Amino acid sequence: MLIIAERINASRKQIAQAISTGDRAFIQEEAKAQTQAGAHYIDVNAGTFVGEEAEKLKWIIEAVQEVTHLPLSIDSPDPTVIQAVLPLMKKTPLINSISLEPSRIEGILPLVVERRTKVIALCQAEHHLAETTEAKVALAGRLLEKLTGAGVPLDDIYLDPLVYPLSTNPKSAKATLDAIGIIMGKFPGAHTVCGLTNVSYGLPARKLINRAFLGAAITMGLDSAIIDPTDKQLYAMLKAVTLVNGKDDFCVDYISAFRAGRVE
Amino acid sequence: MLIIAERINASRKQIAQAISTGDRAFIQEEAKAQTQAGAHYIDVNAGTFVGEEAEKLKWIIEAVQEVTHLPLSIDSPDPTVIQAVLPLMKKTPLINSISLEPSRIEGILPLVVERRTKVIALCQAEHHLAETTEAKVALAGRLLEKLTGAGVPLDDIYLDPLVYPLSTNPKSAKATLDAIGIIMGKFPGAHTVCGLTNVSYGLPARKLINRAFLGAAITMGLDSAIIDPTDKQLYAMLKAVTLVNGKDDFCVDYISAFRAGRVE
Repeated sequence: MLIIAERINASRKQIAQAISTGDRAFIQEEAKAQTQAGAHYIDVNAGTFVGEEAEKLKWIIEAVQEVTHLPLSIDSPDPTVIQAVLPLMKKTPLINSISLEPSRIEGILPLVVERRTKVIALCQAEHHLAETTEAKVALAGRLLEKLTGAGVPLDDIYLDPLVYPLSTNPKSAKATLDAIGIIMGKFPGAHTVCGLTNVSYGLPARKLINRAFLGAAITMGLDSAIIDPTDKQLYAMLKAVTLVNGKDDFCVDYISAFRAGRVE
Repeated sequence: MLIIAERINASRKQIAQAISTGDRAFIQEEAKAQTQAGAHYIDVNAGTFVGEEAEKLKWIIEAVQEVTHLPLSIDSPDPTVIQAVLPLMKKTPLINSISLEPSRIEGILPLVVERRTKVIALCQAEHHLAETTEAKVALAGRLLEKLTGAGVPLDDIYLDPLVYPLSTNPKSAKATLDAIGIIMGKFPGAHTVCGLTNVSYGLPARKLINRAFLGAAITMGLDSAIIDPTDKQLYAMLKAVTLVNGKDDFCVDYISAFRAGRVE
């Protein structure tokens, strides 16, 4: 289970403030905490700084790379921003994200190919939300065709079938879960990834819903997730669900998480 | 999601003591608490009282039926015990359980047919543990053939694919999860049921594993479970997983559980 750690995101108030005030130590603490909590990639996002995104993201990246050995996930839809920060990367990054939108295919795909990065590909339709399983799987197929056609190895592709708020459509999460199952069966070698926060939007006890959705998604085959690994209950659920799904040989991962006080 | 409430079981020390001392109030409190917590059936078990099982079970049943409107789940492998208590039933019970064992087929099946009860059917092999998905599904097919052949309606049959401890075989829960998915797809109209306690045997933080397994099983299609509905975190997970699996129209069940303080 690949964990992409989501906390360094300018849409969070404390992060935006740290970026604005140049509070390097705060950003570095977030990077260290997520590294220690078991992240595999540290996501970095300065998306709310319109017009200054590249500059702010460079500053974040420099700060983060000083304190972690982990590769980064460059979280921007803007090819010029991605291109501007790529030369700074100490390790091969994950680009978060591409979609079938022509500007992103034309702008981002060449960067993925040239730098041989990993990439998150959003199952996002051009003109409407892809809310059904069929629409999500069809988009996954088109994305894979585009990406592998350009030479991106399957193993570098993380398909995100996207999940929408249950509060507006109580069947939407199920469509995403089924899409994960079908994608993992139909396109062996490719990966699936998902964020969790949308699913619980507008409902009470959101973290419980997020945990339940992560567990269900892993059961359907999800093999990476954009989460906060410092969320103790979420991390414990991730470990336990991985265990019950037969993906933890000799229960060794679960038991070491328990010994480290990460599971209760 | 049908909830069979498991607390009144003589293998629990406090219950055995209440039975031994004739503490009717204790048993009744357990029945009331589970009724209030959202049970659909109250399981009753006096299995550890060898030689006195029928007598003790009658006493339990009389006590429980005074304080709950719910039907009971008669938890015994012994046809003579089941036959002895059936006349006491105020509502059509669930018989827990039958298997392909000849004595149980010959002894219990006629009671199920005659009394038109619901029945839990264990996917238990005669001579060895059925640990693979294929073995579990094959046993489910044979049980269904026997039961429907004798006239039991599909809707009254709860197939239990059984789950064994992860600590002895880390793939065993996955075999059960896959069996649930296949059984629900292959035999439409039948139900699946499972207990949770075996899965975590010998591992730390057992309740977390039980919750994770319940969530995974519901995701695979499980539509009833033998659980403790007064376990707050387990109940909350059940509600949240039901929600993310698209089985809670308008999120109404989840929101009322939240309002009742059952979800946090």
